[in-house]
Amino acid sequence: MSEKVVVALDAMGGDYAPAEAVKGAVEAVTEHPEIKVILVGKQNQIKEELGKYEYFEENIEVVNATEIIEMGEVPTKAIREKKDSSLVVAMKLVREEKADAIVSAGSTGAILVGGQLVVGRIKGIKRPALAPFLPSKKGFSLLIDCGANVDARPEHLVQFAQMGSVYFENVMGKKNPTVGIVNIGTEEEKGNQLVKETYPLLKECKDINFVGSVEAREIAKGGVDILVCEAFVGNVILKFFEGVALTFLGCIKEGLMSSIRTKLGALMIKPAIKGLVKTFDVSSQGGAPLLGLNGLVVKAHGNSKSGEIKTAIFQCIAFKENSINDKISAMVSSK
Amino acid sequence: MSEKVVVALDAMGGDYAPAEAVKGAVEAVTEHPEIKVILVGKQNQIKEELGKYEYFEENIEVVNATEIIEMGEVPTKAIREKKDSSLVVAMKLVREEKADAIVSAGSTGAILVGGQLVVGRIKGIKRPALAPFLPSKKGFSLLIDCGANVDARPEHLVQFAQMGSVYFENVMGKKNPTVGIVNIGTEEEKGNQLVKETYPLLKECKDINFVGSVEAREIAKGGVDILVCEAFVGNVILKFFEGVALTFLGCIKEGLMSSIRTKLGALMIKPAIKGLVKTFDVSSQGGAPLLGLNGLVVKAHGNSKSGEIKTAIFQCIAFKENSINDKISAMVSSK
Repeated sequence: MSEKVVVALDAMGGDYAPAEAVKGAVEAVTEHPEIKVILVGKQNQIKEELGKYEYFEENIEVVNATEIIEMGEVPTKAIREKKDSSLVVAMKLVREEKADAIVSAGSTGAILVGGQLVVGRIKGIKRPALAPFLPSKKGFSLLIDCGANVDARPEHLVQFAQMGSVYFENVMGKKNPTVGIVNIGTEEEKGNQLVKETYPLLKECKDINFVGSVEAREIAKGGVDILVCEAFVGNVILKFFEGVALTFLGCIKEGLMSSIRTKLGALMIKPAIKGLVKTFDVSSQGGAPLLGLNGLVVKAHGNSKSGEIKTAIFQCIAFKENSINDKISAMVSSK
Repeated sequence: MSEKVVVALDAMGGDYAPAEAVKGAVEAVTEHPEIKVILVGKQNQIKEELGKYEYFEENIEVVNATEIIEMGEVPTKAIREKKDSSLVVAMKLVREEKADAIVSAGSTGAILVGGQLVVGRIKGIKRPALAPFLPSKKGFSLLIDCGANVDARPEHLVQFAQMGSVYFENVMGKKNPTVGIVNIGTEEEKGNQLVKETYPLLKECKDINFVGSVEAREIAKGGVDILVCEAFVGNVILKFFEGVALTFLGCIKEGLMSSIRTKLGALMIKPAIKGLVKTFDVSSQGGAPLLGLNGLVVKAHGNSKSGEIKTAIFQCIAFKENSINDKISAMVSSK
């Protein structure tokens, strides 16, 4: 592998592919020339898009892939059958160590399945976990797991806490980040069976800075760095948050546009509302990493534009530079 | 039982007890003289508060109870040992059919345990469920279950859907309300084990208008009347919503107060923001009913003022007038 951070980008994934993917790649390598992006997908289309920009040829490579995994496809079937899809080909580059990371704005399900089947798990990791950053008033919390592998066991959640801690510490640069378990009360005896069984294991775990239960009411305030939960709950929190944020902002906009008076007022408060939108923008932290795999897999939001793609690519730098996977691997094998 | 709707009010429960409880009771019977409220708690304190108001004596009765269940107490222990607490005495009035309903702003845990141990379940109901109204852009959805009995089984969720439908139809006056199951995708094969097992049972259930899975992203938009879920997930949704709403509004306020310009703008957009606050006010629908018991148990928010107490008392009218419990009972026994 070269000294550059090599990122395979699924150029055909997402609502605005391949145009925004290609644009994001060019922007990324222009800003950070230590990155090399391998654009994977329909060669002709990608090259046509690339023709619109200037960039150093050593920073961008194109690898052809003739198929595309669409959003509605059954993930396992799609990954097994579409061997020449942009996603599978890009993931193979990581497996073959031709790339350090893969970024895709395509189907979450396919990315999760492909991550396990094509890229493969780190030895000792029982289950990979999708860990997006959830915005809060005080910054960001890593919500782990939001993937599709539901009905986790306590030992999975402990590994989520460990992987999340390594990731957060190295990407956010905060030593000894705090870990909480999402719960319906703060007392130790509260919770469902899974939480009750996991709580003492997290308490005993020496690698992490466990601070106990976090009630859902406290999440938006922020303050706890890593929020551990089982994927069904994590998914509900993430999607519910996106829905509430969109609906709130929609209602504010409608309210502001309802009369001349409020329209005038709206102009005056624009900076305040912009601040709110920025604080609670789910996509501002780029993509969500799928932790626990032999290489970094980053899931970008389906409606990512070039800016989000670029941020997702940048995430891969810290991941490689800090040898996050080696640290995760060391943590697991020391058990 | 008299022809009046008799509501036992735990006058000592909640952050502002007994003052706001007593005030709420007086306001309720003044507005709706067909209600009789039995104020349960420390007689002297209650009578002192009552002395501040004018009301018809036939509408308000005081029943003495010397103990109070505090917020931090272990529910089962508190209910078993504090036989003369305002909550237990008020619940006994329902069990003895001296009251149709009990309203309390006290400890949720104690109310849930007391509901089962003191008031008792309707024959055939496997598990009672706490069902608050969750605000959305289009109105309200009944979120059932948000109680403390986690790790539910599929047959519990089916009963939640049935009880929720009866309640929604009679209280909101909407025929054949829609029922959805909270899920992490809309396809039938999506979900955790519980959801996958429950889905076909809900589909087969003839008493309800099942419309399939509801993704958490769609909840705030509204549109589905009854949202069925297991209590851990329901609790997370409810509390997370409260937290996000508070944090959002707090951020808006801070932003609006940050400069003279935004302060001026804030005055002009006040109606728009007020509308938003009103739309997403969790407490505007009074209390959350605990469905499935022999009598109505309503949990009011701990920080309820007289207005919320009054609304919670009013909820009891529709419950009695529409014989909701008879309908729930008939539905269960017809199986």
